[in-house]
Amino acid sequence: MTADFTDNSDSIVALATSSGRGGAIAVIRLSGPQSIQIVNEIFHGKNLMEQSSHTIHFGTIRDGGVIVDEVLVSLFVAPHSYTRENAVEISTHNSPYIIEKVIQLLIRNGARPARPGEFTLRAFFNGGLDLSQAEAVADLIASDSEASHQIAMKQMRGGFSDQLRQLREDLIHFASLIELELDFSEEDVEFANREQLKALILRIQTVTGKLIQSFELGNVIKNGVPVVIAGKPNVGKSTLLNTLLNEDRAIVSDIAGTTRDTIEDEINIGGVTFRFIDTAGIRHTEDAVEAKGVERTREKMKQARLIIYLFDPIQDSVEEVQQQIDEVKSLKIPFVTIINKSDLLSPDQQSAFSVLNPLYISAKKQSGIEELKEELLKQVNLANISTDEVLVTNIRHVEALGKTQEALDKVLYGLDNPVTSDFLALDIRQALHHLGEITGQVSTDDLLENIFSKFCIGK
Amino acid sequence: MTADFTDNSDSIVALATSSGRGGAIAVIRLSGPQSIQIVNEIFHGKNLMEQSSHTIHFGTIRDGGVIVDEVLVSLFVAPHSYTRENAVEISTHNSPYIIEKVIQLLIRNGARPARPGEFTLRAFFNGGLDLSQAEAVADLIASDSEASHQIAMKQMRGGFSDQLRQLREDLIHFASLIELELDFSEEDVEFANREQLKALILRIQTVTGKLIQSFELGNVIKNGVPVVIAGKPNVGKSTLLNTLLNEDRAIVSDIAGTTRDTIEDEINIGGVTFRFIDTAGIRHTEDAVEAKGVERTREKMKQARLIIYLFDPIQDSVEEVQQQIDEVKSLKIPFVTIINKSDLLSPDQQSAFSVLNPLYISAKKQSGIEELKEELLKQVNLANISTDEVLVTNIRHVEALGKTQEALDKVLYGLDNPVTSDFLALDIRQALHHLGEITGQVSTDDLLENIFSKFCIGK
Repeated sequence: MTADFTDNSDSIVALATSSGRGGAIAVIRLSGPQSIQIVNEIFHGKNLMEQSSHTIHFGTIRDGGVIVDEVLVSLFVAPHSYTRENAVEISTHNSPYIIEKVIQLLIRNGARPARPGEFTLRAFFNGGLDLSQAEAVADLIASDSEASHQIAMKQMRGGFSDQLRQLREDLIHFASLIELELDFSEEDVEFANREQLKALILRIQTVTGKLIQSFELGNVIKNGVPVVIAGKPNVGKSTLLNTLLNEDRAIVSDIAGTTRDTIEDEINIGGVTFRFIDTAGIRHTEDAVEAKGVERTREKMKQARLIIYLFDPIQDSVEEVQQQIDEVKSLKIPFVTIINKSDLLSPDQQSAFSVLNPLYISAKKQSGIEELKEELLKQVNLANISTDEVLVTNIRHVEALGKTQEALDKVLYGLDNPVTSDFLALDIRQALHHLGEITGQVSTDDLLENIFSKFCIGK
Repeated sequence: MTADFTDNSDSIVALATSSGRGGAIAVIRLSGPQSIQIVNEIFHGKNLMEQSSHTIHFGTIRDGGVIVDEVLVSLFVAPHSYTRENAVEISTHNSPYIIEKVIQLLIRNGARPARPGEFTLRAFFNGGLDLSQAEAVADLIASDSEASHQIAMKQMRGGFSDQLRQLREDLIHFASLIELELDFSEEDVEFANREQLKALILRIQTVTGKLIQSFELGNVIKNGVPVVIAGKPNVGKSTLLNTLLNEDRAIVSDIAGTTRDTIEDEINIGGVTFRFIDTAGIRHTEDAVEAKGVERTREKMKQARLIIYLFDPIQDSVEEVQQQIDEVKSLKIPFVTIINKSDLLSPDQQSAFSVLNPLYISAKKQSGIEELKEELLKQVNLANISTDEVLVTNIRHVEALGKTQEALDKVLYGLDNPVTSDFLALDIRQALHHLGEITGQVSTDDLLENIFSKFCIGK
């Protein structure tokens, strides 16, 4: 893609809905100055050029005299559209033949196929979205849990960019004052109040610092909480995993018309995605003493944010379990101790194991599963996601925030040390640059290409 | 599905677009008296109850205070919708999470999940479509060639149902006259002119006869023209098939954003689907003499509507080829004789083979392929598809047409023989019944269930 990002003079077209059988309708989307005119060339029913924005029109798409489909055409007149350009959505029957034919006809009449993310790119260029909001659109579509969805939605609707934009404007104000000082460098004047500047920088650093810290949690929510189910062979690890997976799937398939790409080993509990890490290695640890095998398993377990330690009270003694728990504890990762096959437990055994403060379940008989889920949610402590807290989920944002902080550190150093205004101004400009990268107030074609090429076509 | 087909008092909801990743937007569709009100409960932006039909509204879908998505809502006020009921389309971001959540919210507010084909069923019940038109909607979505698409489109837009309906009404007129005679059976009067009735019946039989005949062609177009590529081993059958397949795929993949479920061994040539039948058997015939093997191959070849007979001029003599051609000819199926590897042919050889009147190609070097395609199209003789000819593609329709003809034969017999009016009336009623089955003027729940359960949900 060597796109000219600034040329929005042409009209673009793409299928906006998922391709594939199973749907009743498909939506073909156009955006650009000529988009309404282009559709009007092949649409029979009404003159679309004379219709108002946000109206729907029934008619046929024709190739010469031949009817290709009966369609609904939705009109959006600039600037009242997603892209802020003239835009049209054609709702056709969901046949690959029809979709192909209609897109071909539109191209023949002057549209060109859209590149991935080009609709959103235009929305960005025309001021409909800032860059971090545009990125959130892709996250929103990809999100598959309530938590990741809420973060993406918050970011799309403004999120931290409003806050950053305001802080950046304040900083620009100081930058210009300091640059003004350069013009009077002979006179040793100070237009910028150094104490106020310092206070502002500390305020910005508090915000950026918090945002950087939020990434760990944000990332976990976006990509799922990594969980390891540990325990000796045959304690019921797979049975537990299957029990959790099947319940999740049953809920999903309850809703007619929605099938999701099931990702093996991902479970949605209370709106949070838990991603299970395969630790085949744990089994080797049990019966082999090789240091290497143990090490590999420990490495795997370190990736976890949560460990579920499962044991079989019939197989293991309290002492054995205690020893294993101590080993797991040394990893310093939150863990939940679970007695499986608890239905086979005598009251005496139960009281013996109670020192471990375990959860009692039976993966096979599906008892105690709800309690386990509650415990998992409690452990990851994501209860406050739907509050106003803003989380960063994008590695690009974290990097820009980090560079902003570095530049601001230099400014702070300059303020406390005999540094001339020109160096001070340079460091502030550097910080402004990195802050601007997040919202796209500063952008390069490379950056835009990198961001928007990851979008699907039609968005 | 034990649906009460006559209850349209509730409002139904379903995802109308294909599920799956890759799309930017998804459309959730509702229909029913309360549909606008139900959406209004969870939509924030405007009061949808106060908006006009065929308008689009931007806003958010909320679950309590939490924003689920930013959406566009399209309103269709009864009777100006596909179903002729109040209808709403909600265009959301294409995230499985969002789709599930929005549908759940709609159900919580009074909608119920739609059954397969229920939107079209309602369109049928509310008089928007007759039954054969409704069936054509499913065919239209499934059609993957220009020819099958044109047939489905013609049927959806009225097709033969208008003609049949008129003939049926004329016949009803006679039926009532004859039934009137029954009331005066003592008096030996004839209200129905027997000659006019006979003429009408012959007219109906001409139409139904033609429609029945058209099924063979219609079926071939809908399901593809069955083709066998025959020839000895190593004459280049697979190379030819791959050359044809790859060209077809290259055209398809030219259009960004449309991927079709590629069906191995189906090729679209000039808008007609050619379906290649595997005849691994033909190879056995060549080197084994078992009668059984030969028989199996011949059976396979008999399913073809067209045989491509391929030979290698380097491997085979004119006499051998002539002998094989005679064998193929005995099947009485149109065939095309093709010399492969024609680039290796000397002028002398070329003139020797010219008695067979073959096409010269090189599957490997892709020469002569366009000429071959033209010949295939010429052989199936589907040139007149896009004219006004109506083709029957539905086995249900053919069966009903056949039963209509049988009943009409009985009426004709009755008219020429001393049969009393009551029997005549009975046979006419029988013919009317079967004619009515096609357009749905006569329908049973069983029939409807059978037809609409084959639809996708959301249509």
